[in-house]
Amino acid sequence: MRNGYNGKILHVDLTDPRWWIEEPDDLIYRKYLGGSALSSYFLLRDLKPGVDPLGPDNLLIFMTSVINGFPLSGASRYSAAGKSPLTGGFGESEAGGYWGPELKRAGFDGIILHGRASHPVYLFIHDGECEIRDARRYWGQLSGEVQEGLEEEIGDKRICVLQTGIAGENAVRFAAMTNQLRHYHGRTGLGAVMASKNLKAIAVRGTGRLIPADPETARRVLQWFRENYDHEADMRHKHGSANGLISLDQDGILPTRNFRDGSFECAKDISGQRMSETILVNRGTCFACAVACKREVAVPERGVEPKYGGMEYETIAANGSLCGVGDLKAIAEASQWLNRYVLDSISTGAVIAFAMECYEHGILTREDTDGIELVWGNGDAVIQMIHKIARREGIGDLLAEGVKRAAAKLGRGAERFALHVKGQELPMHEPRGKRGLSIAYATSPTGADHMEAPHDPFYESFGNYHHEFSQLGLLEPINRLDLGPEKVRAFFYTQMAWSLFNCVGMCDFVGVPLGVMALELLRDYVNAVTGWDMSLFELLKVGERANVMARLFNLREGFTAADDTLPQRMFEPLQNGALKGEAINREEFERALKLYYQMAGWDEQGVPTRAKLAELGLLWAVEGKDAK
Amino acid sequence: MRNGYNGKILHVDLTDPRWWIEEPDDLIYRKYLGGSALSSYFLLRDLKPGVDPLGPDNLLIFMTSVINGFPLSGASRYSAAGKSPLTGGFGESEAGGYWGPELKRAGFDGIILHGRASHPVYLFIHDGECEIRDARRYWGQLSGEVQEGLEEEIGDKRICVLQTGIAGENAVRFAAMTNQLRHYHGRTGLGAVMASKNLKAIAVRGTGRLIPADPETARRVLQWFRENYDHEADMRHKHGSANGLISLDQDGILPTRNFRDGSFECAKDISGQRMSETILVNRGTCFACAVACKREVAVPERGVEPKYGGMEYETIAANGSLCGVGDLKAIAEASQWLNRYVLDSISTGAVIAFAMECYEHGILTREDTDGIELVWGNGDAVIQMIHKIARREGIGDLLAEGVKRAAAKLGRGAERFALHVKGQELPMHEPRGKRGLSIAYATSPTGADHMEAPHDPFYESFGNYHHEFSQLGLLEPINRLDLGPEKVRAFFYTQMAWSLFNCVGMCDFVGVPLGVMALELLRDYVNAVTGWDMSLFELLKVGERANVMARLFNLREGFTAADDTLPQRMFEPLQNGALKGEAINREEFERALKLYYQMAGWDEQGVPTRAKLAELGLLWAVEGKDAK
Repeated sequence: MRNGYNGKILHVDLTDPRWWIEEPDDLIYRKYLGGSALSSYFLLRDLKPGVDPLGPDNLLIFMTSVINGFPLSGASRYSAAGKSPLTGGFGESEAGGYWGPELKRAGFDGIILHGRASHPVYLFIHDGECEIRDARRYWGQLSGEVQEGLEEEIGDKRICVLQTGIAGENAVRFAAMTNQLRHYHGRTGLGAVMASKNLKAIAVRGTGRLIPADPETARRVLQWFRENYDHEADMRHKHGSANGLISLDQDGILPTRNFRDGSFECAKDISGQRMSETILVNRGTCFACAVACKREVAVPERGVEPKYGGMEYETIAANGSLCGVGDLKAIAEASQWLNRYVLDSISTGAVIAFAMECYEHGILTREDTDGIELVWGNGDAVIQMIHKIARREGIGDLLAEGVKRAAAKLGRGAERFALHVKGQELPMHEPRGKRGLSIAYATSPTGADHMEAPHDPFYESFGNYHHEFSQLGLLEPINRLDLGPEKVRAFFYTQMAWSLFNCVGMCDFVGVPLGVMALELLRDYVNAVTGWDMSLFELLKVGERANVMARLFNLREGFTAADDTLPQRMFEPLQNGALKGEAINREEFERALKLYYQMAGWDEQGVPTRAKLAELGLLWAVEGKDAK
Repeated sequence: MRNGYNGKILHVDLTDPRWWIEEPDDLIYRKYLGGSALSSYFLLRDLKPGVDPLGPDNLLIFMTSVINGFPLSGASRYSAAGKSPLTGGFGESEAGGYWGPELKRAGFDGIILHGRASHPVYLFIHDGECEIRDARRYWGQLSGEVQEGLEEEIGDKRICVLQTGIAGENAVRFAAMTNQLRHYHGRTGLGAVMASKNLKAIAVRGTGRLIPADPETARRVLQWFRENYDHEADMRHKHGSANGLISLDQDGILPTRNFRDGSFECAKDISGQRMSETILVNRGTCFACAVACKREVAVPERGVEPKYGGMEYETIAANGSLCGVGDLKAIAEASQWLNRYVLDSISTGAVIAFAMECYEHGILTREDTDGIELVWGNGDAVIQMIHKIARREGIGDLLAEGVKRAAAKLGRGAERFALHVKGQELPMHEPRGKRGLSIAYATSPTGADHMEAPHDPFYESFGNYHHEFSQLGLLEPINRLDLGPEKVRAFFYTQMAWSLFNCVGMCDFVGVPLGVMALELLRDYVNAVTGWDMSLFELLKVGERANVMARLFNLREGFTAADDTLPQRMFEPLQNGALKGEAINREEFERALKLYYQMAGWDEQGVPTRAKLAELGLLWAVEGKDAK
């Protein structure tokens, strides 16, 4: 094998059950690296445009990277990709954990799933082999049962299990996938794609060893990290990803009551700090990661057990402040159900908040909700709605379609309350207070997404700007409310870096916000592992390449510049908090958007120019030539 | 002082004799670094558009860089800049040697000259002081006399003297400037600008010490260089820059007889190897450079003495093969006169070759030449023409205008033989055989120029592509006759690197062709010296910024896309040699040019888009805001 990667992609045809191995050229690995970019390469090459996302013609891809499986903190992430049933466009979502490294050790860099099995199956992949096994007994089971069942059936506790859940089986458009019950491919509904293929799970086990090309340099990078990362001072370790919830509230940008408000009166009650003081029982981590931001919580009176992991910031905000819920224990129970059904916690919370606002305005009534009092702050109502959505019961059947489709069906002004871009619900970051996000949400190929583009690189209250931004030549702070040319440029540059993270599988909790993982160090590690001589320039171009490929994917699915927009509420004033009265100016937003297009090398219709495709080596994708 | 640079720019007003110091913000140094970019910053900021290049309103700028003066091989170069009397546009030309480092040690990073002295003066700059002294006695002297005179007058052999020559005094449009008699700002006629200001010379002497921010890393880079650079194997050291002349001939791309031919029957006789065997008496070098590519030659029977240095490839080809001259000793004498008069050896050879072809076709006659037999191969005629041009005697007065103006005056089809772009004569590299050069020449802001853009990065017969190109993600060789999208991309990327060299003052003899100086190492050195954390991405963006600024300069002087062209001969077949019959296809060239515009972020008229200016932080230059 090569250094860094196996050079092997596993193809599995579920319709006509068989598997085969593709061995891409080394140049393909260097050009695409893995994750988002390498997935997009296969999607643009092998997926026919216009297919039904939930039909057998869709592809489902899992892709690690050239550094995945090596012991760098934050580098355990991998991508899932396919056509999204939520947006009808580019579907992609990353997860951390141990599954990616295990797949690498099992001899594969990625998996491409074709077709649809005649009955529920699971894959057992181990050391270069792939078995397609019966999974009928697991269909309809909660995720914890599936995990245990597979561990028992295979008889090896060391297997890593990736699975779709009941929500996926019921084709909830924002169904997720999980590995080891606590690492999620949350967004874009790929859990429904997996279930539509009658594929319940992929268990992997590998005993191979990954050898870096330059062990000395690889060790030096890890040593630098050890010496420079202050574990104890890291609030992400201490209080999880919700460590900053209180300051978001103070800054007036904690999404509250369906983005009507920017401040939540119970913010402290649902903070990472409060979690640490009350229900936290343990901390968890991903493969080889020193940050250990993962939580384990227990709430015996609500049946919450540690094995499903604890709550991320996104889950707390979406099912907490966004629904006006200030009861951390209720949120913990909601979270556990989201995990048991394997639902995207962001879209689920968002669709419930949408329903609550519809309820407030009489667009939905108690009759519609089967008697559930769907009012702000009702934590148990949130939990009940999760059951209904996952099982598509009653109003859950409508909400399982996501806010865009639900609002269209409801009519009566419900669109006002449907906060989405391209059909995907807004994550828990407020564009009105971090204006760079307005461009990020509007142009993200997956719809509103906090993992496809940086939040707002110069959010002033972070105090200082990060080392890796100055490495890009971004030297002066920019006000978070600014949306002028300098903000657009900062967004464009940092977006390349963020996208790069999604290609190499680097966690932005390690890669950016802590400032401990300078971009040049990531370059050093990529080179140490692979033996290449990539510069940060080349690496950032891979990030840009991934963005453009995803854009091409959406264009051929019929998206246009008109889809690069924001929900109306973003142009209306925040109703409370430190930024009360702040709204995005629509003209300023549109100017910034057009400037971004031009900066990105896209024409006025948002189509990448021929020169941009030539620059990024992507002409093949539009000219029908051999993919390379 | 800061690490790496003094933070001081010396302004001198020659009209109302006085000087003052400007202290730019540190951000200016990081954003522009020095050389071409920092000169352009001051030109765009301080020079009014439309001025007479030879009038008092033109500026003449000398600019070192943040690493100039530190002992890295190849890093001794600095820029001269102003409005060119040859092209009417961006005038810029770099020289190596010792003058730049001496200026740094004297406490200044650059000099900006304003106005015109009432009588010939010279500047004596020493340790933070500037004296404006009488230079009337030096006016009309050959460069060697001026050098000696100033050394004697100042009484210090350690001064470094930069001067313009008799050619500049006579406003020859391609007059050069020299430092220490052997390092030349050859192109764009800035020697005439210097003389137009009645400024004969700038003598500098400094005793300051430059301290790197991180001496340990700086040492490590130098050590890497020592360990990896094989002095004895380097043909540039052994045979000078003309070491490759024979292989150019074999490849059919040695400019011969005014670019009519690609092969010269006497190539071996004028090669660097032949020089080593015959007239070479010593090798010279620039400040702290291990390459030592400089020559010293002696031809007693022709009065050629070593102090003026020996011949570069460009000088040999322009005054040798381009004029059909195969007599190395005659070329050595020609070269010495070029250096004594301080003329651009490329444009001078080219204008003589032009005249020879006109002579061949009867457009010029023996009467016009005062009896000189201006035929291919007449080395003494070349020397006689150099005298005439430098002194603007007889036909020399016409040829001193450059081929473009001379052809326009001559009429009678002379334009066919005038090989220039934007008024500047083609250097000695053949676009028909290295097609990337066609875009380089057409778009270079100084007109046809081999220092503003890379030759052809994937010239196949180099055998292997260079380390630093793979660092840019250029991973596959491209045929030298190719002019498709991949070549355009390779040109665009390597152009940024080349331009970067002109900003930091790195010699491409060290930086690229030898492959010993990887780009990332240059980054390490910039950071070690300055204490910054620049990435190669940021550095390349400085290179791109410099290109765009020069473009803006030309646009405001009235240049348009129509000026981005090639002489007709490039679209006609080579008449002999390995590429006999090869021509550039005009449609292919125009397609490539348009693709380059788009890739560079320029509109169809070749104007940088607002987004490109925003990205590079250059909106100030078009929006009339404060320069920054």
